Amino acid sequence: MNIIHFRPADIERTSMRIIGEELARMGKQIKKENEAVVKRVIHTTADFDYADNLHFSRAAVALCVEKLRRGIDIITDSNMALSGVSKTAAQHLGCTTHCYMAHPDIIKKAKEDNTTRATAAMQYATEAHFDAGFAVGNAPTALFVLAERIEAGFLPAFVVAAPVGFVNVVEAKEKIVSVCEAFHIPVIAAMGRKGGSTVAAAIVNALLYTAADMLDPGARGWN
Amino acid sequence: MNIIHFRPADIERTSMRIIGEELARMGKQIKKENEAVVKRVIHTTADFDYADNLHFSRAAVALCVEKLRRGIDIITDSNMALSGVSKTAAQHLGCTTHCYMAHPDIIKKAKEDNTTRATAAMQYATEAHFDAGFAVGNAPTALFVLAERIEAGFLPAFVVAAPVGFVNVVEAKEKIVSVCEAFHIPVIAAMGRKGGSTVAAAIVNALLYTAADMLDPGARGWN
Repeated sequence: MNIIHFRPADIERTSMRIIGEELARMGKQIKKENEAVVKRVIHTTADFDYADNLHFSRAAVALCVEKLRRGIDIITDSNMALSGVSKTAAQHLGCTTHCYMAHPDIIKKAKEDNTTRATAAMQYATEAHFDAGFAVGNAPTALFVLAERIEAGFLPAFVVAAPVGFVNVVEAKEKIVSVCEAFHIPVIAAMGRKGGSTVAAAIVNALLYTAADMLDPGARGWN
Repeated sequence: MNIIHFRPADIERTSMRIIGEELARMGKQIKKENEAVVKRVIHTTADFDYADNLHFSRAAVALCVEKLRRGIDIITDSNMALSGVSKTAAQHLGCTTHCYMAHPDIIKKAKEDNTTRATAAMQYATEAHFDAGFAVGNAPTALFVLAERIEAGFLPAFVVAAPVGFVNVVEAKEKIVSVCEAFHIPVIAAMGRKGGSTVAAAIVNALLYTAADMLDPGARGWN
């Protein structure tokens, strides 16, 4: 049994080194600016497909980090993604995190409007939060609502688009990427079928850690 | 744009049909008794590697379902996995769900003992819960603690072993599987590096839905 006795921070550092080595061995060229995000998603999934799957709009990481450093609201489409976002890093930057999927008013509104909770929650969030970052790891519907709202003039700080699945998911991610790029909104998306709450949270965390490291270089040993 | 307008239950049914068709096309033979679990994990990840990665001890699904039908405690090693387990299905069966990772007493105890929160939380859970099901989607340490406790006489109802990662993860899953099988404890494990909180929750949900469907066939349209 080859068990390595490490502190969590050491395990993470070792994992990231292994991921970097394997990416190099596979001949994958990751742009330096996207490396923290790509490696953290692979760290979260052990799935090297994400070396090819992740789409970044122009300068997406720098633009997202810039927003996070100012302390913005971060909205997720599932409580699972919400629970995966690092509260420590978010609070450190003055960011707050929100998910409305299980809010009693949203459940009531979805019933009244005969729509899904994902639709009602996302509609509410785009009305209640200005200049917020949106991270979608579950419901393609949430991305369609977001795309519609952006086309109607809503300007989120950024969009992380990573729902997983077999129905409407590929289409939802293609739609949000094209709408975000048309309206110059930074977007990071896991293209294709793959993704999930852990992937959405991993992308947000990579951005939060990068932003926090810029504020306090080396202070927390993040990344 | 090929968007299908479906209710969530229809989307799930369509997804499961697509997964079944693709498994057949890939020539993957999934044992009938494991199908609900395998398909739900693929549904959660869009990763067909799980058709090969999932290990089931003898009659694991039937034995786990039997326990869940009696209404047991389910312990997870992360709040993300906890948040992914269906509370509706759990409550329907009289099962309760617990995670101690963020409990103030556990954080204090981990500091006092100079250990990790995963270790302290799992030690506490094995002392506080008798005949509970354990679902581990994050910390290999949690599996090592569980294996140690089982070797010392602790008898969990079942173990779901699905942490993800590059350090100690493969070893932890091999260890827990061999210990569980030696002590005749049902175990379902995502072998290799892959897994995660969503995978652990998906396995538990597949078991919960199967158990609930046996109580009320067709009542909820689960699965």
